[in-house]
Amino acid sequence: MNAQPRLDQAFAALSDPTRRAILARLAQGEATVSELAEPFGLAQPTISKHLRVLEEAGLITQGRDAQRRPRALVLGGPLKEVDAWLRPFREQWERRLDNLDAYLGKLNRKQK
Amino acid sequence: MNAQPRLDQAFAALSDPTRRAILARLAQGEATVSELAEPFGLAQPTISKHLRVLEEAGLITQGRDAQRRPRALVLGGPLKEVDAWLRPFREQWERRLDNLDAYLGKLNRKQK
Repeated sequence: MNAQPRLDQAFAALSDPTRRAILARLAQGEATVSELAEPFGLAQPTISKHLRVLEEAGLITQGRDAQRRPRALVLGGPLKEVDAWLRPFREQWERRLDNLDAYLGKLNRKQK
Repeated sequence: MNAQPRLDQAFAALSDPTRRAILARLAQGEATVSELAEPFGLAQPTISKHLRVLEEAGLITQGRDAQRRPRALVLGGPLKEVDAWLRPFREQWERRLDNLDAYLGKLNRKQK
């Protein structure tokens, strides 16, 4: 049950489109607050608030450059736990697609 | 941008451990409110509230049996969109693991 609050926080952090867009941007490489603020057309305090939520959820981290303080995506951690939580559902719909494929293949052979 | 509010709602619905557990239970097959309330030791109104959030997010649906009104998991839809959003991140960490494997393999061959 230990991972639950972390998962709660990760899912909640991901429920905002700006925060998801920030993560997608950081997947391309680290960026400073001003580099993040520009493309979104948002004021720096607004971006900073979103970054704080992402950081508290463990989804991003601050780089070591004290001057620029670039933010970086944490690829493992909570994002991976979110993915792990989804895995059984993903496997279930992939299995269903396989079954559908097999069924359609059978129908096809019957028609020939 | 059309899928954004749906994604927001799905992620928000998933940010609660009881709601995630309900989805995991429904992945095994449909269940009535009382069947869902029992294992969680929660009162029916509490479960009903969670079910409403899941239903509004499009993650579950009500079965056709008007008497029992069983809830069923919606396997496609928002859950699949959540998974699709995660895909590029998943691909990135899988690529990194592949690179690490290749690197460790190289180290290994050098030592021999």
